[in-house]
Amino acid sequence: MRTLISETVNHIGKSITIKGWVYLRRDHGKLVFLTLRDRSGMLQIVINAKASPSAYEVASKLRSEFVIEIEGLVKKRPENAIDKSSLAGSVELEAKKITVLAKAEVLPFDMGGKDLNLELPTLLDNRGLTLRHPKVAAIFKVQETVIDSFRVACKKKEFTEFQAPVIIPQGAEGGSEVFEIKYFDHKAYLAQSPQFYKQIMVGVFERVFTVNKTLRAEPSVTTRHLTEVTTLDAEFGFIDSWFDVMDMAEYVVKFMIDTVSSQNADILKMYNVTAPKIPAKNPRIKLREAQEIIFKRTGKDNRHEPDLSPEDEREICKWSLKEKNSDLVFVTHYPVSKRPFYTFEDPEDPGYTLSFDLIGRGTEWMTGGQRINDYDKLVENASMRGIDLKKSEIYLQAFRYGMPREGGFSFGSERITKDILGLANIREASLFPRDMERVDERFSH
Amino acid sequence: MRTLISETVNHIGKSITIKGWVYLRRDHGKLVFLTLRDRSGMLQIVINAKASPSAYEVASKLRSEFVIEIEGLVKKRPENAIDKSSLAGSVELEAKKITVLAKAEVLPFDMGGKDLNLELPTLLDNRGLTLRHPKVAAIFKVQETVIDSFRVACKKKEFTEFQAPVIIPQGAEGGSEVFEIKYFDHKAYLAQSPQFYKQIMVGVFERVFTVNKTLRAEPSVTTRHLTEVTTLDAEFGFIDSWFDVMDMAEYVVKFMIDTVSSQNADILKMYNVTAPKIPAKNPRIKLREAQEIIFKRTGKDNRHEPDLSPEDEREICKWSLKEKNSDLVFVTHYPVSKRPFYTFEDPEDPGYTLSFDLIGRGTEWMTGGQRINDYDKLVENASMRGIDLKKSEIYLQAFRYGMPREGGFSFGSERITKDILGLANIREASLFPRDMERVDERFSH
Repeated sequence: MRTLISETVNHIGKSITIKGWVYLRRDHGKLVFLTLRDRSGMLQIVINAKASPSAYEVASKLRSEFVIEIEGLVKKRPENAIDKSSLAGSVELEAKKITVLAKAEVLPFDMGGKDLNLELPTLLDNRGLTLRHPKVAAIFKVQETVIDSFRVACKKKEFTEFQAPVIIPQGAEGGSEVFEIKYFDHKAYLAQSPQFYKQIMVGVFERVFTVNKTLRAEPSVTTRHLTEVTTLDAEFGFIDSWFDVMDMAEYVVKFMIDTVSSQNADILKMYNVTAPKIPAKNPRIKLREAQEIIFKRTGKDNRHEPDLSPEDEREICKWSLKEKNSDLVFVTHYPVSKRPFYTFEDPEDPGYTLSFDLIGRGTEWMTGGQRINDYDKLVENASMRGIDLKKSEIYLQAFRYGMPREGGFSFGSERITKDILGLANIREASLFPRDMERVDERFSH
Repeated sequence: MRTLISETVNHIGKSITIKGWVYLRRDHGKLVFLTLRDRSGMLQIVINAKASPSAYEVASKLRSEFVIEIEGLVKKRPENAIDKSSLAGSVELEAKKITVLAKAEVLPFDMGGKDLNLELPTLLDNRGLTLRHPKVAAIFKVQETVIDSFRVACKKKEFTEFQAPVIIPQGAEGGSEVFEIKYFDHKAYLAQSPQFYKQIMVGVFERVFTVNKTLRAEPSVTTRHLTEVTTLDAEFGFIDSWFDVMDMAEYVVKFMIDTVSSQNADILKMYNVTAPKIPAKNPRIKLREAQEIIFKRTGKDNRHEPDLSPEDEREICKWSLKEKNSDLVFVTHYPVSKRPFYTFEDPEDPGYTLSFDLIGRGTEWMTGGQRINDYDKLVENASMRGIDLKKSEIYLQAFRYGMPREGGFSFGSERITKDILGLANIREASLFPRDMERVDERFSH
């Protein structure tokens, strides 16, 4: 009967069996110390050559990542040897018997430190191994919380989860950075977004959300882009105005960050970071106002640009944190020309859209807004932009047959995970990051 | 302030505002009856020409799928007019004012019946509209429950959810039915399964699950295959034997079906079906035993076939239901040659594998088993099958550096949804079904 490491503290003075991976081995003459890892934590094992010669013999041949089973006695550690950073840090196991369940070759690098100090290419070339490092694995516990708390937040507001397709008949928004597939005797494409499908689903369930892989043939290598992203999308109808969309976005993001703060407090501590500050109300400013603020703060005049540069995004977040005590800022009213054809134009501010980017900790986290729900206007806008909707007949049906005023938002789980933990590169926040240079292995040129 | 239809029963005698889609309009001279649909249910609206002439004028121009807002008075319906099949069937709304929020064109077919009796191609050609029919929409409430209860079942057993990639460097199992992508200057492929990645993740979190789109260039048109499927996968380490894998599979499926039974009881009733019967223990028989049983029952001798035919699957389920009072049957010990290279061979029954198919209601629902966790054996097996793992270096690392005894299972959410509701074709259980003839629109030839 196996005991998990996290449960050992309840078995002091008893004999138990544990199973896991050797994380570290240290030899001290006739004593060997192992640190053992299982899914619940880390435990110190002590093997005494005199007391347990056969266990000692096995232990002396063990290396990192060997999979072993150990029978032994749980003992309380002396007060001055307690490791408070670890769940089972107050106990250790005195080994009686060790069985090797699976061997490991000699590791290509040391995995035993608190940090895994590897160059990014090495980290990724050895992903089948490096993911096991506790500090690397922890990133994906945060990503799990990010995605799952998104679902919980939406369900609390009566959203229905649906499955959007990966294979699509054409690039949804007329963009060029779309992957092409050989689809039997035809061409098909990979979805860059579930946009059309979530809008269709508003006609079915009113309020919908979906978690999808979205694929973009991103032709540049940056620290914040991947070709494959796990995207979180929500869309809902019967809004009174686009403020409802921002309010919902704000609620969802706040719920997610609050959940990470409470469920992953140990990981935030491990990374020596605090969760982003999100007050109940966060600043909402027009793009032109943001540019004015940046001009006043820095003297840099980007007031005629149609978008924020990465540098601008960092600057406006500094302003938000300093002046509004928030790590978030909604930047609204991007020009019509910079937004997709289905974006709703502000009747009170022509030329600008009822759309927003939510900038978090200096990076665009989320994008959203109100959509055009009038069939004629939608078709006219697509046509003006030269976007061919003839393969999107089912999308058009959703509007031809009665669509209420609606809106929604979309964001990537990797980028928000990266910014919560303060990672330098988005590739660290993807289990198996894909870019133009790598799909598991690096392409040779 | 909008009231949802499901809440109207709490507002008898009060004036409220509701919003939704016109489902039906019936004219009775100076009375117009509407059935209104919102995300919470259906409500009868009564418009009296004398009492509310302006509302009557608007109502007389309404058609199905118009989006409207109605102010009116909630009244209890007479005892003999109560519709017990509907949440708000005991009340109706006496309209005072009607506002059109969005128009709808004349529908191409009648959407007002309890069933939507359309041929499959028409159903799918008009997916942006037909999904709104309550009986069609209900299918995807069941699919939502199937997927979500899978997650809940796994989390209760301390599985971690992770994100597997869609883009992969090569066909994972050496199969030919894989979609090819133009990936910048290279070729890449679409994942048919997250198999390699979930095995890697056993080394990280021991117990993992993942929900993914899997893509298969299925070159035939059948009632149970699609090219894109939402797949549910679990994998876990430190098993004592492969029985642990079957036990976990049985627990998960039973949990899912029990959840559908309780959460979607109204939908099962709507479809006039009962949930599959799943006792605590379901039959587990070897393929050869199954073939023997089928031979005895039908006289059909398939005893030397390496697999069950669709007809065999139906027959063995009839046997299981009659003899074991179960809609499920585990068929085990498929020949080594019929299973992927990583499948564990039974040391006590050479030539046959410690693998299973779980057959439910006459169709293969799930496949699973124990995997080879020894690095040398895995590499040898791949090589014997002519499978090139040189692009799967990170997969190999997971075994090179210590992998415990492990196993897992995989199944599609559409097929199980189809079989729970007794649908004739798997395309009905996919919101946007893809096959060799259709990606939203049918291909012209």
